[in-house]
Amino acid sequence: MDKGRFITLEGGEGAGKSTQVRLLKAALEDHGIEVVMTREPGGSKGAEEIRELLVTGEPGRWDGMTEALLNFAARRDHLVKTIWPALERGAWVISDRYADSTIAYQGYGHGLDLPALYKLWDIGVDGFRPDLTFVLDLPVETGIARALGRGDGEDRYEKMATEFHHKLRAGFLEIASNEPDRCCVIDASGSIEEIQRDMRAGVSKRFGVALP
Amino acid sequence: MDKGRFITLEGGEGAGKSTQVRLLKAALEDHGIEVVMTREPGGSKGAEEIRELLVTGEPGRWDGMTEALLNFAARRDHLVKTIWPALERGAWVISDRYADSTIAYQGYGHGLDLPALYKLWDIGVDGFRPDLTFVLDLPVETGIARALGRGDGEDRYEKMATEFHHKLRAGFLEIASNEPDRCCVIDASGSIEEIQRDMRAGVSKRFGVALP
Repeated sequence: MDKGRFITLEGGEGAGKSTQVRLLKAALEDHGIEVVMTREPGGSKGAEEIRELLVTGEPGRWDGMTEALLNFAARRDHLVKTIWPALERGAWVISDRYADSTIAYQGYGHGLDLPALYKLWDIGVDGFRPDLTFVLDLPVETGIARALGRGDGEDRYEKMATEFHHKLRAGFLEIASNEPDRCCVIDASGSIEEIQRDMRAGVSKRFGVALP
Repeated sequence: MDKGRFITLEGGEGAGKSTQVRLLKAALEDHGIEVVMTREPGGSKGAEEIRELLVTGEPGRWDGMTEALLNFAARRDHLVKTIWPALERGAWVISDRYADSTIAYQGYGHGLDLPALYKLWDIGVDGFRPDLTFVLDLPVETGIARALGRGDGEDRYEKMATEFHHKLRAGFLEIASNEPDRCCVIDASGSIEEIQRDMRAGVSKRFGVALP
C-alpha cells in the first residue's frame, strides 16, 4: 500500500485554518481517501497536555526558546503517536499548523536565531517535512479582528502587539519563498469558498488527485 | 559583586543526591554564602509543571527524543527563572541533576545520538555548564535497592531494566572523563558522612573556600 500524504496549513491568526482543514478533509474523503484531521500544538494525548502549558496563562510566561522546545516536544509526540502511524497505513494527514509555525512565531516573531530553530527541527523531529504546506495569507488587521471575534479563551497569541503579527506575516511569506516546492501561498482575504477552491486546486496539482 | 557558583550533583538512582545537596548547602551557608538549593527536572514554576509530565505515568509514555526536548524545555525555564537570576545576585546554586542527566539517560541509556543531544544542549540553553559537577558513583544493584526503598511514587525510572542502569553508570563515568575540569567523581558507596566529606574537599579545592 502507498504511504499517505502529509498536508499542513499555516498562517497568522484568523485566516480560517480550522474551517479549511474540515472542508479539505471532506473533499478528500469524497474521493475515497482516509483522512486524519489534526492540529498543533496537540494532536496526541501527550502533545495535548503540553499544549495546555503553551496556550494558557500570560504572554511572556515562557522564554522564546523554552516555547520552541515545548513546541518541538509536542510535535515529536504528535508525529510518533498520530502522524507517522497514519501515513504508514496509507491515510492522509491534514494538520492545522506544524513546524513552520515555530519558525514563524519564535524565529521571525520573537527574534530567535533562525538557523538554531531549523537545527532544532532537524534534531527534534528528524527534519520531517510535509508533502504540501498551504500558507494562508491575509492582512494583519483582518486576521486579528477575525481571531478576536472567536472568543475561545485561547487568546494569548492574539493579545500580542500588532507589530508582532506583521513580523509573523512577513515570516510565513519568507518561509514559503524559501521552500517553493513544498509551500503554496493562498490569498485568505477572500470568502471561505474561494480559499477552499484555491486549496483544492493546489492539492490536485501537487498530487494528481482531481477534487471537485 | 561577584557572580555565584553553579554546582550540580549527578548519578544514578539511590546515590543519596538530595541528602548531599542539603548537607552541602548547610556547609556553605555556615561559611556566609547565600545558597539556592534546587533540582531537575523542575526548580521553577513552569519547569515543575513540565516535571509532572515527565515523572508520572508509564515507562515508554514518551519517545526518547520527546523526553530530551521536555527536559531541555524545563531546564531552560529553570535557568531563566531561578538559576541565572540567583547567580547574577551572587548566590551559589546547587542543583540535584542538570543537563548531564539528559545526556546519560536519553543518550547513554536510551541510545539517542550523543552529538544531537550535545547540540540540543547548545541550542536549548546556550551550552550553559556548571562550574563544578559531582558524579556520585555506586554499584547499580546498591543504587536500585536504595531507590526502591524510598517509596515516593516517582518510580518510573527505577522500574526500568537493570541493563539500563548499567549503561547509565558507564555513561556518567564517561561524561566525567570527557570533562575532567568540570566533573569530579565521588564514591557514593560509603556513608552519608564520607560522601559529604569528599564533596566538601572538592568544593574547597575548586573554589578555594575552606569548608569544615
